[in-house]
Amino acid sequence: MVKSMNFQKGKGNLIIISGPSGVGKGTVCRALLEKYPDVSLSISATTRKPRVGEQNGREYFFYTREEFLNLREKNAFLEWAKVFDNYYGTPLKYVESILQQGQDCLLEIDVQGAMQVKSKWPTGVFIFIVPPSCEELVRRISNRGTESQAEIQKRLNRAEEEMAHLKSYDYVVVNDLLEDAMEKIRAIIVAERCRVSRVDWR
Amino acid sequence: MVKSMNFQKGKGNLIIISGPSGVGKGTVCRALLEKYPDVSLSISATTRKPRVGEQNGREYFFYTREEFLNLREKNAFLEWAKVFDNYYGTPLKYVESILQQGQDCLLEIDVQGAMQVKSKWPTGVFIFIVPPSCEELVRRISNRGTESQAEIQKRLNRAEEEMAHLKSYDYVVVNDLLEDAMEKIRAIIVAERCRVSRVDWR
Repeated sequence: MVKSMNFQKGKGNLIIISGPSGVGKGTVCRALLEKYPDVSLSISATTRKPRVGEQNGREYFFYTREEFLNLREKNAFLEWAKVFDNYYGTPLKYVESILQQGQDCLLEIDVQGAMQVKSKWPTGVFIFIVPPSCEELVRRISNRGTESQAEIQKRLNRAEEEMAHLKSYDYVVVNDLLEDAMEKIRAIIVAERCRVSRVDWR
Repeated sequence: MVKSMNFQKGKGNLIIISGPSGVGKGTVCRALLEKYPDVSLSISATTRKPRVGEQNGREYFFYTREEFLNLREKNAFLEWAKVFDNYYGTPLKYVESILQQGQDCLLEIDVQGAMQVKSKWPTGVFIFIVPPSCEELVRRISNRGTESQAEIQKRLNRAEEEMAHLKSYDYVVVNDLLEDAMEKIRAIIVAERCRVSRVDWR
């Protein structure tokens, strides 16, 4: 008689959503989380002070500088960065607790951070979001209305540098229409759950 | 100024749908082709005589035995098999003509055939369909009502042998509810179009 053909629902996957600044990563991620509750967002750690209404463990995990550096020393972050005077990082423990529940964990992160994650978690699903065209990226950055001409140029140059990392990613999704981009990412998430290399087979 | 960020719509992907006999490959494929017209079915070549109503190039490409063996000699088939007195094969040229148009080409095939395709077309997307359980496979084979007890046992033994090839596939999809299985395969097809390694980038 044939052996059992049952598959176990295994651990969730780490899904890294990345791409040049201004490409609309945040909007796509929010739309995705709203529509599909079987995916959870990773929560970052930071040394910056909580703002009014922010709650520890909801918007961020808040740490003192000393605590943060201690954790960093212990390899407790999947990636970290210093932005002006504050540290930010992705707590490995929190990500693991989501995956352990069988939920996929979504990580929205810039290209530099994604490359750090890749070195620590190579089995992650790395998705690169690109604008439909260069002109559209200029328009999106300009439309924020908060940036000077010089700042826009700086962002575009950085975007070009970041595009060079595309080959380190698994998937590329053009963010033309939000709905389309979201459904493509959804398809990637569903497909990756079916990967033979990820399925717990007994 | 940043370079163009436009992606070219590249060639389609070869999607191999395979799995043990009785698992419902054919039903899933038909449902998929009906719902999503951007995927085309591969057409097989055969030496068997056309039946009433069958048309060359629609149900099959009909060849004489001599023609078939000649083509086989020239490596014109992605895979081939002899079933009783007739030959069957997948014409490489036809598959390539579909892919060239940017359409994905669906190939529904048994495990032995899929392994031949894998050796000739390793960049194909190999999907293994499995029954939700062993008991369900027995039920499905028995329900056809055309097989004897001995024949059912033979099929189950073969299914077990075929399961050993799972690790050569990229994806595994449990065919529990038809709609679910179809949407998972659809997700795999959409995701594979977004693969960095497959996208034509300039």
